[in-house]
Amino acid sequence: MSLWVTKFGGSSVASLDRIDNVAERIAELRSQGNDIVVVVSAMGDTTDELLELAWNIDRNLSPREVDMLLATGEQQSAALLAMTLANKQCPAVSLTGWQAGIQSDSQHGKARIMKLDTSRIQKEIEQNKVVIIAGFQGISPEGEITTLGRGGSDTTAVALAASLKADHCIIFTDVDGVYTADPRIVEDACKLSVISYDEMLEMASLGAVVLQPRAAEFAMLYHVDVEVRNSFNDHPGTLITEVAKMENQRVVSGVAHDTNVARIALFDVPDHPGVASIIFKLLADHRINVDMVIQSAMRDDRNDIAFTIDRDEFNKARHVVNEIVVKIGASGMSYSIEVAKVSIVGAGMQSNLGVAARMFDALARKDINIHMISTSEIKISCIIDEDRLEDAVKALHSAFHLEQAE
Amino acid sequence: MSLWVTKFGGSSVASLDRIDNVAERIAELRSQGNDIVVVVSAMGDTTDELLELAWNIDRNLSPREVDMLLATGEQQSAALLAMTLANKQCPAVSLTGWQAGIQSDSQHGKARIMKLDTSRIQKEIEQNKVVIIAGFQGISPEGEITTLGRGGSDTTAVALAASLKADHCIIFTDVDGVYTADPRIVEDACKLSVISYDEMLEMASLGAVVLQPRAAEFAMLYHVDVEVRNSFNDHPGTLITEVAKMENQRVVSGVAHDTNVARIALFDVPDHPGVASIIFKLLADHRINVDMVIQSAMRDDRNDIAFTIDRDEFNKARHVVNEIVVKIGASGMSYSIEVAKVSIVGAGMQSNLGVAARMFDALARKDINIHMISTSEIKISCIIDEDRLEDAVKALHSAFHLEQAE
Repeated sequence: MSLWVTKFGGSSVASLDRIDNVAERIAELRSQGNDIVVVVSAMGDTTDELLELAWNIDRNLSPREVDMLLATGEQQSAALLAMTLANKQCPAVSLTGWQAGIQSDSQHGKARIMKLDTSRIQKEIEQNKVVIIAGFQGISPEGEITTLGRGGSDTTAVALAASLKADHCIIFTDVDGVYTADPRIVEDACKLSVISYDEMLEMASLGAVVLQPRAAEFAMLYHVDVEVRNSFNDHPGTLITEVAKMENQRVVSGVAHDTNVARIALFDVPDHPGVASIIFKLLADHRINVDMVIQSAMRDDRNDIAFTIDRDEFNKARHVVNEIVVKIGASGMSYSIEVAKVSIVGAGMQSNLGVAARMFDALARKDINIHMISTSEIKISCIIDEDRLEDAVKALHSAFHLEQAE
Repeated sequence: MSLWVTKFGGSSVASLDRIDNVAERIAELRSQGNDIVVVVSAMGDTTDELLELAWNIDRNLSPREVDMLLATGEQQSAALLAMTLANKQCPAVSLTGWQAGIQSDSQHGKARIMKLDTSRIQKEIEQNKVVIIAGFQGISPEGEITTLGRGGSDTTAVALAASLKADHCIIFTDVDGVYTADPRIVEDACKLSVISYDEMLEMASLGAVVLQPRAAEFAMLYHVDVEVRNSFNDHPGTLITEVAKMENQRVVSGVAHDTNVARIALFDVPDHPGVASIIFKLLADHRINVDMVIQSAMRDDRNDIAFTIDRDEFNKARHVVNEIVVKIGASGMSYSIEVAKVSIVGAGMQSNLGVAARMFDALARKDINIHMISTSEIKISCIIDEDRLEDAVKALHSAFHLEQAE
């Protein structure tokens, strides 16, 4: 007998029909003699709908009250799934975050799991029940209901799998797994059978969200193998695991892209200590998240500094940057929201020379101009014009022979 | 400074607009220097909608899971009201049943409040917050979410008022208070300014539900004065209090009626010990609630036994009664669902002779036939044909001069 921790996302439980499908899948897994813990998200768009309702009251809501409101979504889907399982003669019990012992810190809206007390879950498993847990929520030391932020249900599942020492952790979602590129852009994109934690993290942070970054971090930290599968079919999924466990180390595992990018450049920034700190502290004070930063070679004691931010924060950022220009005595600024980021990700990159050159060459051959470059040990990202993004993704996918990836 | 416990029902919080009205009322009360605890029901028909959703899965649901599902309704309205108050610069905090310390027994769907631990509520009051509590719910000794049954929010409010020793307990609803008769039937029905607990209990159990019977019991037990008021206007309401506190003791306070009645008669029931017990135990086993019972005078060792039940349980009851007829050797049965109950209620009745005679006389003058009679210390009820109900209510209202009641 083995213990499975599974998670079903909002689209998998969007209606009673879909909840019924989920229940069938669980009942079958259980009939094979397995113990099962299920983490569920709220039905379909429930979370967004509740949030929009609340925004009619006020745009500046108390995060504590927002959590109180949103946590009801998962409680409802958990109860409905328990009822559906019971109707199939499969004994089940639903638990809220606090009943399941999901203890978090007190940061409402983006709480972090601090500790799991799984005694109640284990008691229910011993009584042969499928245990259904409202994902995305916890309880703070003060006894307040918290939510874990977007994708929090993935984190709930991975944390539970780690704590319960589950034999399997499966995230059921609405795609088959992790692809070498977005299949909507690259026709011959391949589903990867396996990917390492840090590759998954880079892919996720670059816009290819299959498993939430924080869940991937948790999996990496606690060495939990996580499989991502499609809840609407029986295709094999993608296993997210440690590099050491992977048989073939690919140089490049995938091409990721992100269009939620805006680029801002400051001209003639005085070159003395503390200037960069002023710029980025002011942006941080306004909660504007900076991604890539490039400082050009010095000439005449003045630099150009360019950076990228999330495009949806661009309007807010523009005002702040104008303020900065005045404050530091730069000569001016320019910006573009018609850019995008394309990246290659691969754990084998660090031990292979010439990967960057091959990337730049592939882009050059298609006449695609590179505005900014940033690299990490397992990733190279380029900022290019947004209207060339599709060409770039295709060219890179082909240059690294990803149509043959497994 | 005084402490107010107020309760707003589902229709009073059915939309964001109505929640805004409620918030205005609370903010005003608070600006007068009062501490305020607010108990809320779920928005509009939320509870019924959630229940209907679940019934699509199964008609025979686990009461534990139903409670898990339904309790979300009040949690949502409580959070939304807290947000609305905050938006009006009125600091507020919403609490679930378990956060508010509402400890109940384990009877899911109809749990009873066992104990209140009001420490969290008092802490919030001390911090000058309006405390908003999700009504209708509690937590069992096993840590399960329970619901208190229909009208449970009224009970939550009265229990809290008792425990917190509140200066005022006001149930805001969608009517002005308790009337001498249903104003839809009797044009000159009067709103009573005051009524005793036991009169309220009799009125409620007879179909005139303004305050839920269990809440009235709680109020009586803990000597809580409860005022029922309309949340949609500023009319004075009805105070429900102890008889001893009432200045004028009316002989009759009101005429109540109930059409959810069916009458069943068993003929020639053998007259020996234990027969009645067999009949009513079988009905109880099938959870059929018996209201009035009449056993006719014995003749030749056989009796006729007639009783009334809720009309909506009639179909279930018919089968059970057929079984009973065979089991006890009665000669047959008859039934009618075209009957209704009309009652006069008054705390002063017990010290006034001739009230019953005056009631029967008033009905006789209108040629209204009485099928069954039952009396208690403060109530006389008659079963009559349903098509004469309106005439009966009007005749009794007039016979006891209730158009002059206050």
